[in-house]
Formats: sequence, structure tokens, C-alpha cells
Amino acid sequence: MAPVTNARVLFNAIPKGTGFCVITHTLLTSAGRLDFPVPGETTVYDTKQKIDLAGVPLNGGFLIMTLPPFTLGEPIVGFGIGVVMRSDKPEVAAGKYVYGTIPHQQYSIIPDMKDLILIEKDPKLPWTVFVGAAGMPGKTAFMGWKEFSHAKKGETAFITAGAGPVGSMVIQLAKRSGLKVIASAGSDEKINFIKEIGADVVFNYKTMDTREVLEREGPIDIYWDNVGGDTLDAALEHANVYGRFIECGMISGYNTGQQGIKLKSVQNLNQTFSKSLTIYGLLVFRLQSKYDEEFYKVIPPALAAGELKYKEDVSTGLERVGDVILGVQKGENKGKTVVVVAEESV
Amino acid sequence: MAPVTNARVLFNAIPKGTGFCVITHTLLTSAGRLDFPVPGETTVYDTKQKIDLAGVPLNGGFLIMTLPPFTLGEPIVGFGIGVVMRSDKPEVAAGKYVYGTIPHQQYSIIPDMKDLILIEKDPKLPWTVFVGAAGMPGKTAFMGWKEFSHAKKGETAFITAGAGPVGSMVIQLAKRSGLKVIASAGSDEKINFIKEIGADVVFNYKTMDTREVLEREGPIDIYWDNVGGDTLDAALEHANVYGRFIECGMISGYNTGQQGIKLKSVQNLNQTFSKSLTIYGLLVFRLQSKYDEEFYKVIPPALAAGELKYKEDVSTGLERVGDVILGVQKGENKGKTVVVVAEESV
Repeated sequence: MAPVTNARVLFNAIPKGTGFCVITHTLLTSAGRLDFPVPGETTVYDTKQKIDLAGVPLNGGFLIMTLPPFTLGEPIVGFGIGVVMRSDKPEVAAGKYVYGTIPHQQYSIIPDMKDLILIEKDPKLPWTVFVGAAGMPGKTAFMGWKEFSHAKKGETAFITAGAGPVGSMVIQLAKRSGLKVIASAGSDEKINFIKEIGADVVFNYKTMDTREVLEREGPIDIYWDNVGGDTLDAALEHANVYGRFIECGMISGYNTGQQGIKLKSVQNLNQTFSKSLTIYGLLVFRLQSKYDEEFYKVIPPALAAGELKYKEDVSTGLERVGDVILGVQKGENKGKTVVVVAEESV
Repeated sequence: MAPVTNARVLFNAIPKGTGFCVITHTLLTSAGRLDFPVPGETTVYDTKQKIDLAGVPLNGGFLIMTLPPFTLGEPIVGFGIGVVMRSDKPEVAAGKYVYGTIPHQQYSIIPDMKDLILIEKDPKLPWTVFVGAAGMPGKTAFMGWKEFSHAKKGETAFITAGAGPVGSMVIQLAKRSGLKVIASAGSDEKINFIKEIGADVVFNYKTMDTREVLEREGPIDIYWDNVGGDTLDAALEHANVYGRFIECGMISGYNTGQQGIKLKSVQNLNQTFSKSLTIYGLLVFRLQSKYDEEFYKVIPPALAAGELKYKEDVSTGLERVGDVILGVQKGENKGKTVVVVAEESV
């Protein structure tokens, strides 16, 4: 078999500017400082590499083909699903599916399962769901809620970025816990969606004042923070005693493009001691070993049964990765952003 | 018996300005916005009230005389010790000592024990210690450390305001837990004191750069925050994964006297999720029912035996309350500030 093209997305240059870059609400570049990426400049779609699928040495690892849903973490590495094509490892046999950190290319030889887990497809769910509501965003919501919310029936939760892949799952988990849910998003379309999935109080933060809403509908016992900045200050002001703050992301302060501007600052941390608040930093990678088994047992079946809803924004073609990263950073995406890399027909 | 003077300190006027007021590191005015108090103007020493100690009706409560150490919480209410003079309550008999929230006056009729506990004097300790290292500041340190530090031997703690009544106890508790302790204070005298009580790394934050010290001596697993602002940002930058932040006070941002200036802002909260940090707001009142028994069993004997050290700054006379409040807010006090109201000779 002749070598085939191994299409890749390469991280080509550091975007200019000093804004701190977090592409999604769940992942972050731990050390990078990036400005908006420029497709074709900072990220490049490359088709020069060829790979001999039958002959390439595996060196004890296994060869995978990246499957349709390929979600974006940060410019070099993302979460995806691969189907194993050949393998030197009996426990990762050809035909099995792996999920986890996968390079941005069609074919990859993976040395070990360190950053991957084996997953099984639910026939009622498309693969895209396994990098969305049943993937990292869903895990972030599920595991963060389990670990940190300490939710009690009758309490009130405030969830920002409620229409996003994490926020929309959190809204539904909060409703399942018997809470009153206040949720915000940035467009009428998003507001309609979060109303549909069960939020009790919804508002467009671009047209309504967050403090007024919280004054009327609060105080809040749980704040799920995807934005940071002044919204976090408003939540601190309107928190109840013993409130729990789950810090999942702070996208509002990134990519200002102005030298010296950092994350939007927070001024009301004195509320933490006057109200005995706890602020939890959530990074899902550190919770997976504890909750992965429960997650796959509970969430995919609930999604397949329609008990939990999800919404996705699917782009086709690895060559669109650059545009898609930009869209996510500008907030133009709706739901979890996935890129379809290849159809499953080897 | 003729009525005697019941000297009081009255809160007379709200100080001008918009700075948020927290007088000590452990107590705060939950709703007040105050500027520096002006003795004789915002606080007034008043001797007009007379009280008939033998005849004043108790209405089911009990009459106490405020004892020498009277520590300042906020302008109206503070923590003090009283000796019961007469009582309608058999369980709070004359001659017993009560500790807790007591009005700023020599004699008070207290309706119930809601804000008080009975305490016993340790013959080796002056009463002043029972409102300091064996009182609210000691409790703040002890209970906050027990509840939130999750200290593990070999970890590193950073403690600000290390020479204060809370900080100095935390330093000693951290050393007892087997930690490396970095501690800061604002004068050479204070630095010498925190070195004496066991801190491994000490520095004057006015003459040394906190970030440089933490860069060299960190990363830190526990941050005991008495100051907030940029020091909190520095601690966030130099925190270890899974770090615990105990928010005890944020005195650095108060009383700026400038309209519109609030607490000093914090910019590095994105570190909470990248490092899976937890930030705990500590208000000792909410921990007392859990830890009071253990505290009185452990701390006063350790202080009496000299195993734990303490330092106090004692002023004499209730009429000095106004000056003392100002001194605390300006950072001129050394150790726990107590005001001696009366000698124990009824």
C-alpha cells in the first residue's frame, strides 16, 4: 500500500499580543500568552507528510486514525477519538476506539495509553458527542459538580456561559439536584437554548445587568464561573453564606491585544471571609481517575435516552481548524466546537 | 449602694471615605464602609450613664463587669471577658467568667449566653491572653488551620502579617505540623519576633520583593492571607498544584480615603483552575461550635507551658479605645491589641 497523505494542523507562530490564551472553558495553555490566532499564519494546515499505513514501524505502540469528531483544546493538542488500525499492544487491538489527547493529524502512532482511555460507542450517539457532552466538557461539568458543588435541594445556582458545552450540562445537573438555576449567555439564541434545557431564570448579560438579576433572584449558593472579572465580583456580592464558587474558566479577560493588560481583575474577595465562601479551581484532568467510571456509566446513557440534552457546532475538515480556533476565541461558536477530520471508512 | 458611672465607648459618626473597613484581621464590619476613625469624633468616650449595680433589674439575665482585657473588634462591639456580679441564671452564677461579644462599657446586663461562653482562668496566664492567643485571634489561627490547611509534613506555607496575633500563632502551628514556613511582616522588630517563634524564612515586605522570596523559597502549598491585593497575586503565581489559600483578612485595601477606590484588586485567579487551588474564606465565628472544646483543651495549657509564644500590646483605660482603633487600622500595633478596662476588684 502506497503511503497516504497525513494531513496535520501545525502551530506555526506565536500570535502577537499579551492576552493570556485559553481557547475553551475547559482547557488552557498553562504557559502560553497568545493573542488571537491568524489562520494560515499562526496555524497552518499541512498536507506534505506522507505515511505508509501498513509499513510504518509501531515500536511497541499502535497506529490510530483520528475519527470524525476532533475537538480543539489548544493549538497543538486536542481531545479526539481514534480507531486503532494496527497495534503491537494486545490490550489495544485493531478496531478498538481510544479517547484522549491526540495530535492534530489524521494518523498517529501512539506509544502508550498514558493520555488515552478505551471507550465504547453508544449506537444511539454520534461520535461527536463523545468529545462534547460525553467527552471533556461533559466531564468537566459532571466531575466539577460532583466534587465541588455540595448541592442541596432548594439552593440557588448561577451559571455563566450557560449555552456552552460545559455550562449547558451544569444547568441540567443543577436542575437534577433540585436547585433553582439562574443562567446567562450572550445572545437571544443561546438564551432560548438554556431556557429549553431547564434554567429557571435566564438573561443575556450583554443587555441585562448581572447585579440586578442576582439582586432580584439571589442570593446564590453556587456560582459556576466561566468568565471571571466583573461577573465574578457580582457573584461574590450576591453570594449566600457558605457559598461555593467553581472556577472553570475566565475567558473574559483574554486577548485584549493591549500591552500590559492581564486578566480582568477581581475586587470583592473580601466577601470570601465575611461569608465563609469557598472557591474551587477546577481542572478536569485531575478528577478523571476518580470519576471516569461513574461518568461513562451515567452520562452517555442519559444522553442517548434524551434525558440530558446537548447542542453541537460541527465543522467539517481538518483544514478548518485555524478558523475554528479563532471562532471559539471570539465567542462565535454555538455549543461545543468539533472538527470532523475523517469519516470512519478506512 | 448609689449608682456608679458606667463608662462607655460610643460609636458616634460614620468616618468619611469609601474604604471598606476591617479593623482587625479576624473581625469585620459586614456592611460598613468606613474611613479612618477620628477619636473623639467617630468614637466617643462617654461617662454620663449611671448604673445601680445592686438594684438594676436583671429580667432573667445577669450583670457583668467587663474585666481588664478588652479587645477591639469593631467600633461598637468587641470581644471581652466579664465577671458575673449578679445573676438570675443558676448556670451563670456570680463569680463566673464569661467570654465573647460584650458591649464597650464597664457594666452590662446580658440576657442570655447566646454570644458568650463560660471560661476558666489558667493561673499561669494573664487575662489579656484570653482575648489574644487564647481568645479570638488564637481561635482564628487554630480553627482555620485545623479546618482548611490540610497540612502535610514537608509542605511549605507562606504567612503574611506573621507578627500579628493570628499570624504568629499560625506560624507556630505550621511548624508543629512539620512545614517549612515563609513569613512576612512590616518592620525589623516584627521580623525578629517571627524568626524567634520559628519561621524558617522571614522578610520585611516593605524592603524585599515578595515575588523574589517566593520564587526562591516556594512553591507554596498553603497561603495564609491577611493582606490580599498584590501579595495574594504573588502567592497565586507561586502556588503549588493543589495549594490551599486561607483568606483571613485583606487589610491592605482599606481606608484609601479616595472616592471610588475599593479593595485592592486581584488579577491571577486564573491560577485557581490551572493549579486546582482551593480558596477558603475564614470567619472564626462559624467554626467555634466545632472546635471550641479542643481549643481550650490544647491552647491555654501550651501557652502556659511556654510551648507556644505570644506577644501583646496592652493599653490601659477604656477612654483609649478611639486611639487604639486608629492605631490598629494604621498598623501601629504590635501583637494583639487589648484595652484594659478595669481591674478585677469589685
